[in-house]
Amino acid sequence: MENLILDGRKVAQSIKNQLVERVQVLKEKGVTPCLATILVGDDPSSATYVKMKGNECEKIGIKSLRIHLPKETETIELLETIQKLNEDASVHGILLQHPVPSHIDERKAFETISIEKDVDGVTSFGYGQTALGFGKYPSCTPAAIMSILHFYQIPIEGKHAVVIGRSPILGKPVSALLLNENATVTTCHSRTTNLSEVVRLGDIVVAAVGKPKFIQGDWIKQGAVVLDAGYNKGNIGDVDYDACSEKASAITPVPGGVGPVTISMLLKHTVDAAEETISKH
Amino acid sequence: MENLILDGRKVAQSIKNQLVERVQVLKEKGVTPCLATILVGDDPSSATYVKMKGNECEKIGIKSLRIHLPKETETIELLETIQKLNEDASVHGILLQHPVPSHIDERKAFETISIEKDVDGVTSFGYGQTALGFGKYPSCTPAAIMSILHFYQIPIEGKHAVVIGRSPILGKPVSALLLNENATVTTCHSRTTNLSEVVRLGDIVVAAVGKPKFIQGDWIKQGAVVLDAGYNKGNIGDVDYDACSEKASAITPVPGGVGPVTISMLLKHTVDAAEETISKH
Repeated sequence: MENLILDGRKVAQSIKNQLVERVQVLKEKGVTPCLATILVGDDPSSATYVKMKGNECEKIGIKSLRIHLPKETETIELLETIQKLNEDASVHGILLQHPVPSHIDERKAFETISIEKDVDGVTSFGYGQTALGFGKYPSCTPAAIMSILHFYQIPIEGKHAVVIGRSPILGKPVSALLLNENATVTTCHSRTTNLSEVVRLGDIVVAAVGKPKFIQGDWIKQGAVVLDAGYNKGNIGDVDYDACSEKASAITPVPGGVGPVTISMLLKHTVDAAEETISKH
Repeated sequence: MENLILDGRKVAQSIKNQLVERVQVLKEKGVTPCLATILVGDDPSSATYVKMKGNECEKIGIKSLRIHLPKETETIELLETIQKLNEDASVHGILLQHPVPSHIDERKAFETISIEKDVDGVTSFGYGQTALGFGKYPSCTPAAIMSILHFYQIPIEGKHAVVIGRSPILGKPVSALLLNENATVTTCHSRTTNLSEVVRLGDIVVAAVGKPKFIQGDWIKQGAVVLDAGYNKGNIGDVDYDACSEKASAITPVPGGVGPVTISMLLKHTVDAAEETISKH
């Protein structure tokens, strides 16, 4: 079956093109959007992610303020760093790279980010607003998944969406966003019994498990839309792409699917947040 | 088939018995738990609900501070009233009776309630904390449903729970609570296609639609547990009780099911909040 490959690079480019113009307008008004990223410790993949995010900011004219704290940093010091960024009017968005070293209370650190600067959508306050339908900055991967569906005009209303995974920044918020766009939403996880049968209910399937090639071809209903939010070692998604694409009417590849759009949502939220500071004056 | 009638009055009594002792201890420490209720306008059923809540408080020794504002009250005046209660250290919980007159921004009013006093679980912040698994005061009806399941030791983990309804204080939070206790959760609503088929997936079915006798007997899988959070005119639930109880292994009646437990959760949260003020000192 011929299926549609959901090209995340194309979606991301379209978003970034609009942002370039908006950043220009902001700068003419004397405001340079700024994303502060905080990296704690020396985990090489975290360092790579943060660097990539910073570089993507700069490419479209967003200032990237990169804070690197040593791995011995205590929770209280991290909270102070975040608090200073909350108070710094030149900073519009704050991203704390997950994971932080295990001795740090990561949840407490996330919760310290002020709602106005939570462009990565990690606070419980932001999650609550998103789920109740008036959040400004949903988590970036869930927002990316919705952007892909919108870009390709894939119908959501009345469809049965099955989300595999329930993390605070992925499974839960993407379930909430799909529900708010009138999908019937089933959220599955490691304790789900008969997972394959449940996934087979899905007109839209979102894989957010963090296990390479976990979603099998025969779990997918003929004609379903498959979105793979997984990004495992060696550029491998959560979905067995070859097997699933035989069943799916549309599918995101890995790499080049959800990933690139996720970063563009982070940029968009940062520009949104910068614009908010102007509209308040 | 002989089935188990989930007796909400029994669950509520068990909760209230514990609260009487806890209130006693608080009073010995010089703290009288206090719930402030705000009623805006003269809707007779709202007036009845608020009165009932206040009376239930007093029965177990919680102070009931009853504020009645005229129906012409403007949003800003309501916000000021809430703000004063937020600042009043003798008040431990704040309940704004829904619905307020339509000219008032109810969401804004709810959001003004401080998280420490949001014992009715109406703020987006409280919702987010609940959904992410560390909320102190989930909305009372969802909390009541979980209490009934716990009281009757009904297994939740790995079960497929189907919630019909997605309101901010009922369908969404009960979905979140069931998910956090390891159910696979499907949330349905007015745009769900093939609703009867989806409901038939449920090992646990929660009806939160607000339409009398909406859930039909042939929608219920043999042996499912049915919880009716509906409370429609004339004491009628959302579930066609007679038809559904022929299929269900356990079911809540209306009245005498979820309703009484809901009020006891409000009392419990108020006592919890009063205890929190002591543990902070």
